[in-house]
Amino acid sequence: MPETKTCLVLHGPNLNLLGFRETDVYGKRPLVDIDADIQKCAKDLGIEVRILQSNSEAQLIDAIHEHRIWASGIIINPGGLSHYSISLRDALAAVRLPVVEVHVSNIYSREEFRRESVISPVCVGVISGFGGFGYEMALHALNDLWERLI
Amino acid sequence: MPETKTCLVLHGPNLNLLGFRETDVYGKRPLVDIDADIQKCAKDLGIEVRILQSNSEAQLIDAIHEHRIWASGIIINPGGLSHYSISLRDALAAVRLPVVEVHVSNIYSREEFRRESVISPVCVGVISGFGGFGYEMALHALNDLWERLI
Amino acid sequence: MPETKTCLVLHGPNLNLLGFRETDVYGKRPLVDIDADIQKCAKDLGIEVRILQSNSEAQLIDAIHEHRIWASGIIINPGGLSHYSISLRDALAAVRLPVVEVHVSNIYSREEFRRESVISPVCVGVISGFGGFGYEMALHALNDLWERLI
Amino acid sequence: MPETKTCLVLHGPNLNLLGFRETDVYGKRPLVDIDADIQKCAKDLGIEVRILQSNSEAQLIDAIHEHRIWASGIIINPGGLSHYSISLRDALAAVRLPVVEVHVSNIYSREEFRRESVISPVCVGVISGFGGFGYEMALHALNDLWERLI
Amino acid sequence: MPETKTCLVLHGPNLNLLGFRETDVYGKRPLVDIDADIQKCAKDLGIEVRILQSNSEAQLIDAIHEHRIWASGIIINPGGLSHYSISLRDALAAVRLPVVEVHVSNIYSREEFRRESVISPVCVGVISGFGGFGYEMALHALNDLWERLI
Amino acid sequence: MPETKTCLVLHGPNLNLLGFRETDVYGKRPLVDIDADIQKCAKDLGIEVRILQSNSEAQLIDAIHEHRIWASGIIINPGGLSHYSISLRDALAAVRLPVVEVHVSNIYSREEFRRESVISPVCVGVISGFGGFGYEMALHALNDLWERLI
Amino acid sequence: MPETKTCLVLHGPNLNLLGFRETDVYGKRPLVDIDADIQKCAKDLGIEVRILQSNSEAQLIDAIHEHRIWASGIIINPGGLSHYSISLRDALAAVRLPVVEVHVSNIYSREEFRRESVISPVCVGVISGFGGFGYEMALHALNDLWERLI
Amino acid sequence: MPETKTCLVLHGPNLNLLGFRETDVYGKRPLVDIDADIQKCAKDLGIEVRILQSNSEAQLIDAIHEHRIWASGIIINPGGLSHYSISLRDALAAVRLPVVEVHVSNIYSREEFRRESVISPVCVGVISGFGGFGYEMALHALNDLWERLI
Amino acid sequence: MPETKTCLVLHGPNLNLLGFRETDVYGKRPLVDIDADIQKCAKDLGIEVRILQSNSEAQLIDAIHEHRIWASGIIINPGGLSHYSISLRDALAAVRLPVVEVHVSNIYSREEFRRESVISPVCVGVISGFGGFGYEMALHALNDLWERLI
Amino acid sequence: MPETKTCLVLHGPNLNLLGFRETDVYGKRPLVDIDADIQKCAKDLGIEVRILQSNSEAQLIDAIHEHRIWASGIIINPGGLSHYSISLRDALAAVRLPVVEVHVSNIYSREEFRRESVISPVCVGVISGFGGFGYEMALHALNDLWERLI
Amino acid sequence: MPETKTCLVLHGPNLNLLGFRETDVYGKRPLVDIDADIQKCAKDLGIEVRILQSNSEAQLIDAIHEHRIWASGIIINPGGLSHYSISLRDALAAVRLPVVEVHVSNIYSREEFRRESVISPVCVGVISGFGGFGYEMALHALNDLWERLI
Amino acid sequence: MPETKTCLVLHGPNLNLLGFRETDVYGKRPLVDIDADIQKCAKDLGIEVRILQSNSEAQLIDAIHEHRIWASGIIINPGGLSHYSISLRDALAAVRLPVVEVHVSNIYSREEFRRESVISPVCVGVISGFGGFGYEMALHALNDLWERLI
Repeated sequence: MPETKTCLVLHGPNLNLLGFRETDVYGKRPLVDIDADIQKCAKDLGIEVRILQSNSEAQLIDAIHEHRIWASGIIINPGGLSHYSISLRDALAAVRLPVVEVHVSNIYSREEFRRESVISPVCVGVISGFGGFGYEMALHALNDLWERLI
Repeated sequence: MPETKTCLVLHGPNLNLLGFRETDVYGKRPLVDIDADIQKCAKDLGIEVRILQSNSEAQLIDAIHEHRIWASGIIINPGGLSHYSISLRDALAAVRLPVVEVHVSNIYSREEFRRESVISPVCVGVISGFGGFGYEMALHALNDLWERLI
Repeated sequence: MPETKTCLVLHGPNLNLLGFRETDVYGKRPLVDIDADIQKCAKDLGIEVRILQSNSEAQLIDAIHEHRIWASGIIINPGGLSHYSISLRDALAAVRLPVVEVHVSNIYSREEFRRESVISPVCVGVISGFGGFGYEMALHALNDLWERLI
Repeated sequence: MPETKTCLVLHGPNLNLLGFRETDVYGKRPLVDIDADIQKCAKDLGIEVRILQSNSEAQLIDAIHEHRIWASGIIINPGGLSHYSISLRDALAAVRLPVVEVHVSNIYSREEFRRESVISPVCVGVISGFGGFGYEMALHALNDLWERLI
Repeated sequence: MPETKTCLVLHGPNLNLLGFRETDVYGKRPLVDIDADIQKCAKDLGIEVRILQSNSEAQLIDAIHEHRIWASGIIINPGGLSHYSISLRDALAAVRLPVVEVHVSNIYSREEFRRESVISPVCVGVISGFGGFGYEMALHALNDLWERLI
Repeated sequence: MPETKTCLVLHGPNLNLLGFRETDVYGKRPLVDIDADIQKCAKDLGIEVRILQSNSEAQLIDAIHEHRIWASGIIINPGGLSHYSISLRDALAAVRLPVVEVHVSNIYSREEFRRESVISPVCVGVISGFGGFGYEMALHALNDLWERLI
Repeated sequence: MPETKTCLVLHGPNLNLLGFRETDVYGKRPLVDIDADIQKCAKDLGIEVRILQSNSEAQLIDAIHEHRIWASGIIINPGGLSHYSISLRDALAAVRLPVVEVHVSNIYSREEFRRESVISPVCVGVISGFGGFGYEMALHALNDLWERLI
Repeated sequence: MPETKTCLVLHGPNLNLLGFRETDVYGKRPLVDIDADIQKCAKDLGIEVRILQSNSEAQLIDAIHEHRIWASGIIINPGGLSHYSISLRDALAAVRLPVVEVHVSNIYSREEFRRESVISPVCVGVISGFGGFGYEMALHALNDLWERLI
Repeated sequence: MPETKTCLVLHGPNLNLLGFRETDVYGKRPLVDIDADIQKCAKDLGIEVRILQSNSEAQLIDAIHEHRIWASGIIINPGGLSHYSISLRDALAAVRLPVVEVHVSNIYSREEFRRESVISPVCVGVISGFGGFGYEMALHALNDLWERLI
Repeated sequence: MPETKTCLVLHGPNLNLLGFRETDVYGKRPLVDIDADIQKCAKDLGIEVRILQSNSEAQLIDAIHEHRIWASGIIINPGGLSHYSISLRDALAAVRLPVVEVHVSNIYSREEFRRESVISPVCVGVISGFGGFGYEMALHALNDLWERLI
Repeated sequence: MPETKTCLVLHGPNLNLLGFRETDVYGKRPLVDIDADIQKCAKDLGIEVRILQSNSEAQLIDAIHEHRIWASGIIINPGGLSHYSISLRDALAAVRLPVVEVHVSNIYSREEFRRESVISPVCVGVISGFGGFGYEMALHALNDLWERLI
Repeated sequence: MPETKTCLVLHGPNLNLLGFRETDVYGKRPLVDIDADIQKCAKDLGIEVRILQSNSEAQLIDAIHEHRIWASGIIINPGGLSHYSISLRDALAAVRLPVVEVHVSNIYSREEFRRESVISPVCVGVISGFGGFGYEMALHALNDLWERLI
């Protein structure tokens, strides 16, 4: 178990539109509400979180680099970058932290091209299809993982 | 939200060997311990669970059929059947219940053929890579789903 | 023409749910009614039939083996097994009887993976998309085949 | 059920050679005999049929267009056009009538390229492998379909 | 028809080099001249336009998000992003405006990888191969579309 | 710029059903109205047009051959032939005139097999998804092209 | 050796443009000259030939059917039909005569899609790349074949 | 070398028909004779064998699980399951015993789909094409393997 | 036309067995007889030939290099090397002489892997399926080619 | 059974390094020891063997040709040639002797490209993964085969 | 040879972590040291260099555009962008300077998806696998190239 | 660092024609000049080199085997063998020396089939596209590698 439980939460491209965009697929809750839930859940588990949303691959990579000492785990929803950004994958692999990939919708039941994420192979695990609640599940998963590391 | 929260938990082929088999991949906890955790977590959430492990595709299909009235949700780890059993998929699609697919290891970071599950497209969501804890996450996910259905 | 006209009718996985399952795709008649139609149609044609539904690949194979002397033809709806069960295919090829493959829905207008049946290449012919009536068509087809063998 | 039962029967390229061509694959009965059987079977079922054989994709499309008001159903054996004629497919889809696709031989047990028909996805159903008798089966299938529409 | 006709015009990566780069493929007119033509044509049609060129996927996504209330239509030449940017596609799909995709060269007669645009499936239509004039065609197309919406 | 502006407009298979066929996909205007618009638009631009609809690949090829001296440009909607007719492609390539390919619906957002046109690589450009208005756009595009040739 | 040496020579779509079309690829001799050479060469070898050029798949099929008694061999240049016309292939296979496929250009050194001819598998042999002289080679080849049949 | 040489021999689906089924492919000796040869050969080598034939994937998996302590090696002919049963593969990989895969016919010279066995990658070695004698070869191979382990 | 007509004839691997090997596929004439025919035919045409058979890719390449000044054309039957030897292809491309590829059997009607020759794209033309007579056809083809070069 | 039991044993490229090369994959016994074992085992079975190792495809083909009268069977380990040498395959198919393919390592559990041998389809059977002992198994297999031929 | 030798050196995403990240793959030297080596080597060769590292595709493209007049050559390690950034490729192709692609690790011996770089086809050459030294090799290569241009 | 720096330089098929063959692709310097440059460069670096050109896969393999003790590194340009010779790859992998692969032209910007080298995965690194200078770069790379091994 790490000394302090610290987690970087990253939302990729277009997730700023959550709650406004294709609500039948992605649900009606805006990102700000989901972030509040994440903060609350993290607090309950004694985890310190920092949350960033960006539509920029480069900003996401930069954030991963910058937090690689501070963070003891990463939760990322790579959005559309999931399907092609080898650069993002390399950044996650480089920092050698446990990474949990979250998707709001179930990517495996959508278009063919969404079924493969180039990010997944460098993650500890994947959570897909449970809406905003998936982030809370990810926090619990990281917490469980850290505790098993004792 | 369903009147009673009832969940069928299915473990597919070879999961009876959990804790004995390739422990670097699948972890060291035997299935009986994991099942105890599932029962405990379910109880905490007010969910009634029935758990079945079988190496037989037919028995899993039969169990799905038999519980389709009783159950308000299904959690399934299809094991090796994930990658070819259209029959199991059809059974899950037929009963029209919310299904959560769980994998103990992260199937997306293993052999190429394990990256596609024919089961996933008929599921609400997928949880992969969090060991036995994945089942507890699945219970929480179903619970969240039911509550949002109110 | 065989001395006696005897036909084994096999229903594969999930067909026991006919009439209850995805009725927009598979129709509203339960299997018991379809079986009654099959019996009646067979009687009209002077064909003796034995009907078996099973969700088990092994039971279907066993039934084929056991009836290979008694039967002069086989009608099979392999359900989901159509798309992967080389074992079922081998069983049908092994007994060297005329086999008619029936599908209740038109498998060629559904998901990509349903368009190929590994069973079809060892069959005399295929009937797909005509609901429960397809079995009666199959009986007529076998009857026509036998009569041409005189 | 349509007011009058009217059916356009279309034979595609090379079917005029039936009975003369590769008789081990396609059988020994000439098309004229098969057409006579179709007429007789249709009469028994109270169906009015018009039959056309053409080696021309365009003539087949024209015939479909011209009969789209008159006909309440179409039976088509697209011959070699099955495997590439998107134009023929579009014509059948455009007239929005129930279409039954018939193949004299079992196309699924022949060369790889014959296993996919671009026509099948716009048909109600497919009958493959029962020789000239397949057309009679198709008439029965259409008849059954119309009666279920009542 | 929308109350005001407003259109966001987006030029993707490398289009700032138009007129300087591979002029045999992309023509000799610099982007500034093309933008002037767009402004003039828009004025003639009573359309208000805002034009942005960026080599950054993120800036393009941001611009789409920011203009999703203001704009009643989008014209985009995604440049090289056409072939991989699922994130850009998701942004366009998210704002649910009519989008017209424009390519200066005919992408279908170039390298194999240029023949597929991941953007096209979320667009109303595509215009490819008509040089800078394609943007004017796109304005006319949007205008026609809006008028048909009355 | 050619001495006289002359354009052959070709409508391929099933386009005679425009306005009657799948109107959600192809729109409600019959071909005769669209042809009137084409004539009017051509007149405005000083272009002489000849229009032909045919369901026959051969008639389309013949028409291309016959007009290769008369025409200074070709507009073609190849319909279903787009996806397989190498012969039509060869005819267009042979006459070495500027060709504009038009599709009424956006072929890139439909079935997988409609995303590739074997005709496109021999065309100057492609216009897809703008209904009958696409033909007018094509006339403008040809006109622009001719004027740039001065 | 057949009693009389009779050969049907078929030129497929666009071959009527030989000598006018892409002369760097197909050569400068018009079809009428090539046909004269064929007639002369045939006469020298004591072969009676009938020559047909058509842009219509149906006319080519009809011609094959009509000459199946008269001809003792067929020479065909299927043009663009080589790459998709299963109907033409079926016609050639049906008449069970020796068929020689000729291509004026070397199809194996051109675009990827030209490298596969669906006609070739039902031919005795293929001659590709020798311009109009290829037809004379084909006559010699048929002649040699017939003489070996003695 | 293990203390006692004990071997589980598994025959998969349809092998009970050996000697009755497609004897040109699989030979004329019934399974009972082959099993007698196995027993005799094993005795000569001082190996204790237990033999099971089943058409059920589940029974085969169960048998592997049950014998994982008793057995020091496994010989398996997976029959048709070779080509898709990831579950059977996982069972064999789980017990971490040396496994020899045997095929009566040479699967590499048959249909394309028989050329890949999903079982082979978890085996020590493969023996294919030597009829019933292949099982004796497998016993010798295991014996050699054990002796080299000393 | 070259000053002297000189041709290198190369027979690749296993062609030394012609007449002894699979005579149903390759014919009954031994290579020595075919070589005599080649010599005689060449003499008639005023062509000087040198003939080499080798089972060695390297010897064939060496021969091509050594004769690149002497020869004005090459006839090659690459045998099995046709399907993989990029080195042989490079040798032929390097010497920039007209090359005719000959196959004794019709490679396009055999196994899938024989349908593609990596040699063909660097040849003037291909002759396939006419037995030993194909070499004589190749000589005539080269002769015609040279004469057209005048 | 042949009059005399004579067997050609061929070791392909790099097998001369056995015992020196990647010993974790290929074992520690040098080829000379394995050849001694082969000789001894052959003697026990009354088989006369000739053994050749060569890194040259051509020498292997030559050896097959030269021994085609003398040998009544062939054992070959084609080494790396397994995966591409159609020429070697053709040589083995040409001599129409029973061929047994041997691989020292289990090629089916290594890199993807090693899983397919182009040699296997022309062999009686394949033995893969049993080290040098595989050659002795092959001798026994040939012996069994010959005896069954009586 | 250009008047002044000027070279833009670009390091793509994640290369700022060199020396800190997966040091077994990428080596232990930090980027700052490698840049010092580049500067020194360039000075020795009389080349002026400007070096930029960025995780942003857009910044890399911008840098290429901005230096297209100043630079007489480009050295780029595109990092993860190598495998998908058509935009970066287009930027490099647009400026028509000699480009050398450098990879620190040997991308051809890693995961399948790393074996193809979409950047390589627009480069003069590629250097892969020599650690930080590869950049110095690239400088020498450019220098050699320039000198050959005299 | 090895005690003595010794390097085997291998030129594969057709490289003896360098300077004579397709000089636009491969440059104008003959191999003898390039070899002189290699010798000179090696001398400067204190490396002893032996150089061999062969068109024979077997001779190249033999040379690798023979020099595996003497050499401390290998530089190889496998020519056309790059794309299929698994045997050559196995030879290089077997001797466990650092190997540098050199290509005179940039294989990644040529035909599709040249983009994959089966040799590259067993090499330390690859240098492609720098003409004869690539060999000198390879010597420097090996030298750097050896020095880092101290």
